[in-house]
Formats: sequence, structure tokens, C-alpha cells
Amino acid sequence: MNYCSRCGAPVSLLIPSGDNRERHVCGQCGTIHYQNPKVVVGCIPEWEDRILLCRRAIQPRLGLWTLPAGFMERGETTEDGAARETLEEANARVRVGRLYSLFSLPHLDQVYMLFRARLLDLDFHPGEESLEVRLFTEAEIPWETLAFPTIRETLRLYFRDREGMYSGEIVREWGDAPRVRVIIHEGGRDDEHPL
Amino acid sequence: MNYCSRCGAPVSLLIPSGDNRERHVCGQCGTIHYQNPKVVVGCIPEWEDRILLCRRAIQPRLGLWTLPAGFMERGETTEDGAARETLEEANARVRVGRLYSLFSLPHLDQVYMLFRARLLDLDFHPGEESLEVRLFTEAEIPWETLAFPTIRETLRLYFRDREGMYSGEIVREWGDAPRVRVIIHEGGRDDEHPL
Repeated sequence: MNYCSRCGAPVSLLIPSGDNRERHVCGQCGTIHYQNPKVVVGCIPEWEDRILLCRRAIQPRLGLWTLPAGFMERGETTEDGAARETLEEANARVRVGRLYSLFSLPHLDQVYMLFRARLLDLDFHPGEESLEVRLFTEAEIPWETLAFPTIRETLRLYFRDREGMYSGEIVREWGDAPRVRVIIHEGGRDDEHPL
Repeated sequence: MNYCSRCGAPVSLLIPSGDNRERHVCGQCGTIHYQNPKVVVGCIPEWEDRILLCRRAIQPRLGLWTLPAGFMERGETTEDGAARETLEEANARVRVGRLYSLFSLPHLDQVYMLFRARLLDLDFHPGEESLEVRLFTEAEIPWETLAFPTIRETLRLYFRDREGMYSGEIVREWGDAPRVRVIIHEGGRDDEHPL
């Protein structure tokens, strides 16, 4: 951020009075431009013992499989957003149920919320952002070609315990081979950081 | 938003190619400036049969009681943010547990996430944003002077069922007397919009 989106003057990074973090502050009109994490909302669309996945037609992770999910938009609820993304990516209609997984990704400034959802019919087909959309049983899940760690972890948890609700974090670790570390906060399935 | 925060040129509201919503797009460098809801994270800090509330020293709702909560910051998890807000507003140390309530406020473009949390000691005192911090039993909760509908609804649910997890939405309704309508998505405690 270089310029004030309100008046166009240059901004500076400084700690405003009463705050304890650096913010971009306009030198002319004084507007403080807060930047906050974004919410990604999505569904686990269920049909009997199968769930719906989409193969991505866009970057990142083009060609890999994911649950339908995307950035929450202004003016909607988390559940509305999850249903909208499912409609956009898979042309699938769902009744959104309860929150299943909540993951923080502090290195990306994102919070993922994935909801259980019931498919209302089988009349789905790929949206513009998908190459392919299909139902998978647990045995058919393409574990090696899933697009994101949040999706892999959510599915891994889901097939062990659909009734629970899980929260956790996915941390990027740097080293010879950068990787992500997954920490599940409860449910007792990960002892890295139990709560 | 009037100017591009990257290059300082004027922005226009238009629907980018491949999108279906109006965005602020820079006429010079082409940057698309997405705007998304913000996350508010907070705690229900527990000590035996009492919970901690803070009386607000700042606007809005100065002088009214609230659970410690505030905007999630970049680089942190939802639980980290909830603990940080509790430390900032009440100088109270907590062990954050699981998510208790999730409320969407589409008219404010906010998502509230309130976590159960255990106070680690009784050595708390008001932070800069609080006039007063104290523990309340259920009978002592100042229902008439709570600051926000999300807080009132969370406490109302909490004292009926601490073990559940609730999601819902709070909708502003306009009329002779503007008011908010609370819709609980599950738990069977509100029949306006059961899921």
C-alpha cells in the first residue's frame, strides 16, 4: 500500500495513537487503512456416502481437486457464501448445515470455514472455475492430487468423525523443503498443540 | 474508495472479466481492489461459574458491557486473536478452548467468532479500552446494558447450553424503529430459520 484510497496522497507506516501496531496512515487526510485477514467459506457437499469435489480450472493448483470454497463477499453470511461458492464452482444446490472445520492460515492471512452441506439434487456440472465435478466415496478420494492442506485435513478429519467440529491452524515452515505443519486444536487427534 | 492504493491513480467501479460483482479497479495499473468482511474474535472467559465482562471505555457503546473481542489482525490465528483481545481489554490471561458462537452480520460486513476460554488467574484489570472489568454469575449479567446483539445472544445461548456450538446471523431491519433480528441456524432454539 503506497497511496491513500480515499484522497490519493502518499501513506506512511506508523503506529497510530492508542494502537500498538503499524498501520498505513494517510499523511494528508489522516485515514488509517487497516488490513485484516480474509475469510474463505466453502462446503462439504454430501450425497449419501459420497461427497462432491471440483477439479480446479484456475491457478493456483490448476488441475487439482478441492471442495467448493472461496472468499466470503460483502453483504452475505458465512453460510450464504459457502452456498454461493458451491453454486458458482459446481452449479450445485445445497442446504448448508453446521460448521465442520475452522482453520487459520496466519502466513496467508486467511481463515477457512468449511460447512457440512446436503446436495439437493444431482444436477451439477462444472462452473467456469472447474474442469470437472464429481462425487467421491471415501475410497475414491484423490488424496495425492488435492489442492490445499485445509482441504486434505478437513477430509481426513471428516472421514474419521463427521459429527465433530474441528479447529486448527496451518503453519508454513521454511527450511530445505518448505512445508506446512497442521495443528488440530481439539478432538485429540494431534498432539502437537492440544487444548 | 477513490484512488488506487498501489499507484495513486483514480479507480472505477466495474465488473472485471470472469467476475460477477462490481470491484474498484485501477484505470492505470489495473489492480483489482477486493473488499471483504472482517473477522471479530473474542472470548467467553470463565472462572468457576462466573464469566468476565468488560465495560467499554470507547465508542461505540461507551459505558456498556461486552465480552472481550476485537478485529482479528494479520499474522495471527483466530484463537491467538481472541486471547490477544482478552489481554488488551482486561489484562487477563486465558487458555482459549473451542469455538462457541459464530455470527454473521451482513449489514456490517463482519463475522463474529467467540471462543470458550478458561481464565488462568484472577489478576485482571481494565485495559485502555475498558472502564471496568469484573466477573459475573448468570444472575448478575447486566442484560439491559450489554453493548452488542452478538454478545447478548451468545450469553443467552451460553447460559442455556454451554456444550453446544451455535451459528447464526444478525440482520438489521429498517422501519419505524430500526432493530436487529437474530436468527439461530441450529440448536432448535429459534424457529425463524431452522436448518
